[in-house]
Amino acid sequence: MAFKVGIAGCGTVGSGVVKLLTENCKLIEERTGKKIEIAFVADLNKDKVLSLGVKPEKFFDDALKAVKEVECDAVVELIGGTGIAKEVIKEALKRKRHVITANKALLASSGQELFNLAKENKVSLKYEASVGGGIPVIKALREGLIGNRIERIYGIINGTANFILTQMSQKGLSFDEALKVAQEKGYAEADPTLDVEGIDAAHKIAVLSSLAFCRWVKTEDVYVKGIKELTPLDIEIAREEFGYSVKLLAIAKEVEGALEVRVHPTMIPEENILSSVNGVFNACLIKGDFVGETLYYGKGAGSEPTASAVVSDIVDVAVGNTFFAPECLFKGSNLRIREPDQFTSSFYLRFTAVDRPGVLAKIAQILGKYEISIKMALQKGVAFNGGVPVVMTTHPARKREINLAVKEIDQLSVILKPTFVCMIEEF
Amino acid sequence: MAFKVGIAGCGTVGSGVVKLLTENCKLIEERTGKKIEIAFVADLNKDKVLSLGVKPEKFFDDALKAVKEVECDAVVELIGGTGIAKEVIKEALKRKRHVITANKALLASSGQELFNLAKENKVSLKYEASVGGGIPVIKALREGLIGNRIERIYGIINGTANFILTQMSQKGLSFDEALKVAQEKGYAEADPTLDVEGIDAAHKIAVLSSLAFCRWVKTEDVYVKGIKELTPLDIEIAREEFGYSVKLLAIAKEVEGALEVRVHPTMIPEENILSSVNGVFNACLIKGDFVGETLYYGKGAGSEPTASAVVSDIVDVAVGNTFFAPECLFKGSNLRIREPDQFTSSFYLRFTAVDRPGVLAKIAQILGKYEISIKMALQKGVAFNGGVPVVMTTHPARKREINLAVKEIDQLSVILKPTFVCMIEEF
Repeated sequence: MAFKVGIAGCGTVGSGVVKLLTENCKLIEERTGKKIEIAFVADLNKDKVLSLGVKPEKFFDDALKAVKEVECDAVVELIGGTGIAKEVIKEALKRKRHVITANKALLASSGQELFNLAKENKVSLKYEASVGGGIPVIKALREGLIGNRIERIYGIINGTANFILTQMSQKGLSFDEALKVAQEKGYAEADPTLDVEGIDAAHKIAVLSSLAFCRWVKTEDVYVKGIKELTPLDIEIAREEFGYSVKLLAIAKEVEGALEVRVHPTMIPEENILSSVNGVFNACLIKGDFVGETLYYGKGAGSEPTASAVVSDIVDVAVGNTFFAPECLFKGSNLRIREPDQFTSSFYLRFTAVDRPGVLAKIAQILGKYEISIKMALQKGVAFNGGVPVVMTTHPARKREINLAVKEIDQLSVILKPTFVCMIEEF
Repeated sequence: MAFKVGIAGCGTVGSGVVKLLTENCKLIEERTGKKIEIAFVADLNKDKVLSLGVKPEKFFDDALKAVKEVECDAVVELIGGTGIAKEVIKEALKRKRHVITANKALLASSGQELFNLAKENKVSLKYEASVGGGIPVIKALREGLIGNRIERIYGIINGTANFILTQMSQKGLSFDEALKVAQEKGYAEADPTLDVEGIDAAHKIAVLSSLAFCRWVKTEDVYVKGIKELTPLDIEIAREEFGYSVKLLAIAKEVEGALEVRVHPTMIPEENILSSVNGVFNACLIKGDFVGETLYYGKGAGSEPTASAVVSDIVDVAVGNTFFAPECLFKGSNLRIREPDQFTSSFYLRFTAVDRPGVLAKIAQILGKYEISIKMALQKGVAFNGGVPVVMTTHPARKREINLAVKEIDQLSVILKPTFVCMIEEF
């Protein structure tokens, strides 16, 4: 008997799913013995849906209506956002249908409510496509690494930001120039806020860390900083002087009994494999206590890669692999979220100073007052922003002390612009 | 009720499994609701088993006896080899116990027989630990990419060989010197044949390609060439002159309706992410028609990483994820194995010639006769092996013509040593 799926939302990802299920339907049946059949496709754009070869009687312009009226085994939610998408998922779960979604924003805001509803109704809520596009990283974390206590996750999980940073690094473009290239190539939206401000990556690391650390992590638990302040000069200095590349890294780790979840531009050693993740590619580095470091890499977005992830979830429920979340997630956890002030790391600091003797001493004196130990310092003999850049890296320090010191330094008359601060991750 | 596993073989991997199940038992139970219990541990070394905290009544010195006498849900075969290991697996399957194994040699020789036996008895035969140590690459291929027609697999799946090549590349060591370092560090056995001759990688790519292409691939279907002939000079020329790194690559791809499965030293572009896989790390690059390129990276061997993979299989069967092989694998396939003569690729050729005018012309003339088109040629002004190295890369050519041309060239009086030939993969 065929396994019937209804598809709610037929945009970029939805049309990829219809295409995959059409083209590779026979292949999937040969492999699993299960025939996957499309029960309905709901979207506002009828012409588009029909152009994919979907029969008119399977088309609905109202997803909620389709869920209510059409018998099926699973509903795929690809509408996006936190409005109607949520209603569709809740309706489907209440009707005891498995749900597959790519909606990280919704999971990061209402995950607990929706997972509980799935559990109550004894169906699965699967979400492989919500992080890392086609990369089966949710499955790896949920099943492949299940024997491990997860220690750390590092993700390059926003392709737009990574494309922009790669352009800035390889071609010396400014952020604005690189954004323009990304928009021309269709890798960035007209309003790129979600991507370049780190919000999309925050949704994704919230989803990953809930799964890894058995604790609901919401968007507001994630410390977020975007990439707009980065300059080609910082990227060049990081590489040429210190051997670092710069990535928008999503990080989740347990430190001294608290969970640290953050997204920000991060300098990482060039020899780390994450430095080789360029352009629109995504990667997650997951460290477990037994397995050590593992990495998952692939296209983090796009119609066909994301469809691959959606279909793996559909097949999972079709063949009975219905384990979708760790049991402990439902029991609550005492693991507290670490305050950003407490983050401890090495830092890169670029001061913009007047070209005058004694500047370095004044900066060093204030850093010393806050017990921040300087690892390397250099003064570039180039004019930048009307001053000269004075760059330092520190030994591990708390963000709190760094913030206080930088605030004090920025008030010095010899400092011309707000200091650029970037965390360094040595792994 | 606890899920009971018997462990047959308590060497490097087996002791890692006992350790993991002991230390992370509670964590696994919190996540899955299932308690995993050790039913027996069979090994010749009683002291070692007891030192791991296994109770004496659970120890057996005869694995086959343990399987026959002890009630359990699954048997983990970690004896290795194709003798008693096979008997243990067959006995367990006949008794309708799920089997988990890391035994690539056995799967590559008797996979069809064992998988059929598992299917007959309606139990699973799982083998995540057989390829890539702790990397959940079997799961990714079997489940995560199930919607994709697999086009290509590229694997760096022997850590010993990769460690040796990394040493040769980064430190300019000869093969013998690098092997010695590997042996001192415990990364290579006293008899390193299986690793450096590519045989272990051949077993693994046989396992991966059976799964990916739904056709039983056996060791003898794999074209194999080891790394002993490689010199630091070739590695240096490849990098400095052509921008290639050299890896022992396992390759499986469907070309014109035939399956090409091979393991050999391969030159690959330095900017490909596989070039960043160094030391004992392993990686598999899998290309699917929808997902595009994905990569899985981690420690390919060692007690704890491999235990992580074994335990993920145990948990899979404990929670009911029992899908272990594509259905079509049991039906047979017409996909034929491509003869090595037919492999088409770009080639790197290093001739060892006398330092005399006209040599290049003679070589080029013979290559031309076989319609092999030269892409780049260079003559290094250094003495090597009593002659001068003349290096060429070709445009895509068939291995058959390359072999014939090289044979003819090697008979020239101006050629002093057998020519070194290496395939180039441009992806």
